[in-house]
Order: sequence, then structure tokens, then C-alpha cells
Amino acid sequence: MRKVEIKGYGYYLPKKTVKFGDNTRYRASDGETQISMAVEASKIALKRAKAKIEDIDLIVSASAVGAQPIPCTAALIHEQLAKGMSIPAMDINSTCTSFITALDVVSYMIDAGRYKKVLLVASEMASVGLLPERKEIFELFSDGAAAVVLARSGRKSGVIAAMQKTWSESAHATEIPGGLTALSPTQITKENRGEYFFKMDGFKVLRTCVKKLPKMFEEFLAENEVSLDDIDLVIPHQASRALPMLMKRLKVPKEKYVNIVADYGNQVSVSVPFALCKMLEEGKVKKGDKILLCGTAAGLTSNILLMEL
Amino acid sequence: MRKVEIKGYGYYLPKKTVKFGDNTRYRASDGETQISMAVEASKIALKRAKAKIEDIDLIVSASAVGAQPIPCTAALIHEQLAKGMSIPAMDINSTCTSFITALDVVSYMIDAGRYKKVLLVASEMASVGLLPERKEIFELFSDGAAAVVLARSGRKSGVIAAMQKTWSESAHATEIPGGLTALSPTQITKENRGEYFFKMDGFKVLRTCVKKLPKMFEEFLAENEVSLDDIDLVIPHQASRALPMLMKRLKVPKEKYVNIVADYGNQVSVSVPFALCKMLEEGKVKKGDKILLCGTAAGLTSNILLMEL
Repeated sequence: MRKVEIKGYGYYLPKKTVKFGDNTRYRASDGETQISMAVEASKIALKRAKAKIEDIDLIVSASAVGAQPIPCTAALIHEQLAKGMSIPAMDINSTCTSFITALDVVSYMIDAGRYKKVLLVASEMASVGLLPERKEIFELFSDGAAAVVLARSGRKSGVIAAMQKTWSESAHATEIPGGLTALSPTQITKENRGEYFFKMDGFKVLRTCVKKLPKMFEEFLAENEVSLDDIDLVIPHQASRALPMLMKRLKVPKEKYVNIVADYGNQVSVSVPFALCKMLEEGKVKKGDKILLCGTAAGLTSNILLMEL
Repeated sequence: MRKVEIKGYGYYLPKKTVKFGDNTRYRASDGETQISMAVEASKIALKRAKAKIEDIDLIVSASAVGAQPIPCTAALIHEQLAKGMSIPAMDINSTCTSFITALDVVSYMIDAGRYKKVLLVASEMASVGLLPERKEIFELFSDGAAAVVLARSGRKSGVIAAMQKTWSESAHATEIPGGLTALSPTQITKENRGEYFFKMDGFKVLRTCVKKLPKMFEEFLAENEVSLDDIDLVIPHQASRALPMLMKRLKVPKEKYVNIVADYGNQVSVSVPFALCKMLEEGKVKKGDKILLCGTAAGLTSNILLMEL
């Protein structure tokens, strides 16, 4: 076990909501940016951790899409939170599951004593990449940010185990092709404009998930000698309305997983930490509980992480 | 010491070169892409490591700028190298020093036994972000890729110590503002087109470096009880022609550091691993040698890493 503890947590939801039938989605407006949302979420996490930014010795941005191509997003968050200080800043990215990947990675460094207090923040402006005519996608995503302050744990708590797999046969099943080196912003035309927005072959993603996830889940549980009975709550990425179908395939009963996709949408990398924050805030998980963070990401990447709070 | 060994290394330089006075720069052409260069460098590294891609259990892309906003660059490299396999893929990014940051981060996971053989690759298409009218920048950068295969070391070799600092008062001294959420590709106009290309306030960067680096260098050496005499070779980021001036400030004698900026340019995140590959290839460093990787990155981030080969 990598002895890591969540000392504080916070999230930020944009003020503006839009409704699609029974579904509520959050959309940044009025000066809300990827960085400003990250900063607000971080401030709440720091406050709950009873920490000042001066106490933090690593800032990690765990978002799918960055604010600028250069510098990394963590440096831009640093600029708003820690200007004048020398806290190292880095991005860790596995798209939608970046938070799980980063928590996994950072847990080794915290456990080894390299960093003592880490600010881990995910922030997304999914709405920038949405085309209204791609209705299914347009009505699915939300903007937002969520952050945690992590520290070495003095108690019996931490990351028990984690597993990540990438299946690149579905690398282009969910993507934004344009904006960086493969298709630069200056190459945009009326004809290829759609390439600069999020595209999703939902069927292909779902098919890969249905085929691969049950086996990965079983492998993870077997390898770590845990059963679903040992786990208090499963906090999955809120990918889509297909969540209950997938959870059923993984044999996770309805009362054992978080399903808030109707109320908050798919917030890309923010979904998992936001749902974690919500559950902590509502007292649905508490110290000593075992939680399982999991999800699939563009790539196609899948992550599972077992943690004792 | 985190027991890590470089099992293999490889680089790729674009076929096309351009000359600016005595300076040679490499520019991708004829279907050379960020991903294709990463794949070529990786194949050479795997060959030298006498490893197949099946032996790799983590693919990390350590580049400043990605190929696509979604998915992460490592997944796209995975697609060309490892399609049909389930090797996890992730990006670690601190812009120009991404390779040093990633080597530092990954060393904890290798040392802990989480991953056994890691492919770490940096690849950059700097030329996509260069405006000819920004002469100083246009004549400085090169494209390219470099990769290493890392494994747990059975010998006395590994990462001895590393330090990273980010000084965000210079966050915008080197940047590409446009292409992602802060300024999306669809917002491009004739007037703001320059915002989608690399900008550099070279004087501001240099001033920050001159002010901050000597202190950080001293702090690193003192903290780890090493002196320059203990180090066989310093491999710095090939940021610009100011390299000798900076090295002088850090009291590194001329024969003790790599200076190939005239011949290869600033390859962004590729500079450090490329120079490392070159030195290994030319036999200028060998098993048992102590090397210091260092550099500054947009952010402004500075890294130092001491490794025994």
C-alpha cells in the first residue's frame, strides 16, 4: 500500500446550466476558464486541508485537454495560485482517466517521501470542443474542475492497488484531431472545421468496453485478492447513460456505484474527482472506507484504482 | 537511489536540414510526423535494449506539445507500435524538460516494481509552431525524437536525486497561447494568427535563469552532497546560444557539458534525451558514469537530475 491520504477536496461547477430533457449540463461562461475553475476548486481543497499554498510541494494538473499548447496547464494554475513561489508543476495525462493515473503515479512519490503535500487538480472546458450538430455529444458533456490535496498518511490508508491498460485499436474512437501538431490551428478551413471538435464513435467505444472491461475487472480483483464485498463504493467515470449497463456487466450492484451522469454530465477528466468530492461532501464515503475509482478514457485507456480513505 | 537502468536508446532526426549561417536545423517533411518520429526512435531504442514491444509494460510520452488534443500522445504512439496489446500509455509534461520530469517520476514506479520495462519517448514538431518573421525563434528550433528503454537495475546504477522548480512569474515568457481551451482553433483570425505560434521573450527567460539557476544548482549539489568533480558529464537542455554563458554562471567547465545547439538546434523536449543518446552512441559516457541532466522549460520550470549510468 502506498500510504497516501486525501487531506482536502474541492470542486467548481460553472454558474450556467443547460437542460436537455431531464439532463443538466454545466457550461462555462462570463470569464470562467479552465484555469479559473482549477484555481477555485484548488482553493476549496486547500481550505478543507487546512493548508496554504506554501505548504504544497507539487502541483499536478490531471486534465485531458490543456489550456495552452505551451506551457503545461499546471504552470498556468501555478501562476494564479503560487506566483513568486518555486513549487514544481507538471501535467499527467491519460485523457478522461488522468486523475486516476495521476493519483496512482503521485502515490509512489508521496510514499517515498519525495513530495509531502501534493495539489492534484483536473479541470476541463469540454464545451470548447462541442459542435451542436453532433447532438449526442453536445448534450452529454459538462465543464468543471475538481481538486484534492494529498499527503503521506499516518493512518492505515492509501492506494492499495491500481491497474491501467490502453487498447489503441480504438485510439480514434474518441478524439479531437485538430489543434496541435497533427493538424495545426492554421490549417483550419470551412471544410475541415469539424476535425477541431470532439468526435466519438460511441458504439465502437462501448463494444471495446463490453469486450475488455469485465476481464480486466476480474483480473484486478483476483490479482489483489479483493472482492466487490470488500469495497464500500465504486466511483466510475461518468462516461454516458450506458453506465448502468456497463456496471451490470462488471457485476457491480446499483447501490454500490455512483451514477450522477444525468445531473452533471460527462466532465471528461473531472468526472471521477468530482464524484469523489461529492461523495465525501455528502458523507457517503468516510475515513476507513475502501473505494474503487475506475473509468475508460480516449486512447482507449482503462483505469482501476483501489484506495482506503 | 531509485535503481533504474537505460537498457536501450534511439533517436530520429528529420531528413531535411536547413542552414542559418553556421547553424544546422532539422525540419520534418515528406510524411514525417510527431508520431512517426517517436515510433522510429522507439524502434531503435527497443532494438538496442534487445527487447520487443511485448516486453514493455508502460509507454510514456514526454513531449511539450502533443499530436492531438485528444487522445494523449502516448496512445497514438501505442497505436503504431503496440496495436492489439494492452500496455498502459500516458503523457507526462513539463514542456522542454518533460523527459527529465518523466524519468524522475517513472524511476519511483520502476524502483517499486510497478513497471518492469518502460518506453520513454520525447518527440517534437517545433516547426509547426514557428513563424518565419520571428527570426530568432525560427532559426533556433529543430524537430526530432528520442527514446529510451528503462528497467530496474541489478547493478549500482539509477537516479540518485532530482529537483524541479517552477517559477510562474515567467509563465508567459515562452508560450503558444492558441490551439486549446484558452484560445481555440476556431477563434483564429488574420489579426490574432500570431497567437497560434511560439512566442519567446528571450531576455526575460535569460534574466530569470541567471537570477535563479545558480542558487538552485548550489542547493541541489549541497543537498545531495555532490560536487561537480563527482559528475562525469552535464547534459543540459540545448535552449540557445546563451548556453555557455549560463554554464559559466553554474561554474561548469567547458569540457564538462554538452553543447550541440549549433549543429542540432533547440529540439524542445527532445534536446536532453537526444544529447544523452548522442553521448552514449559516441562513447562519451558509459556504464558507471555519473551524469547530470538539467534544463529550463516554458513554465518557467527548471529540472536537475543526477543519474549513475
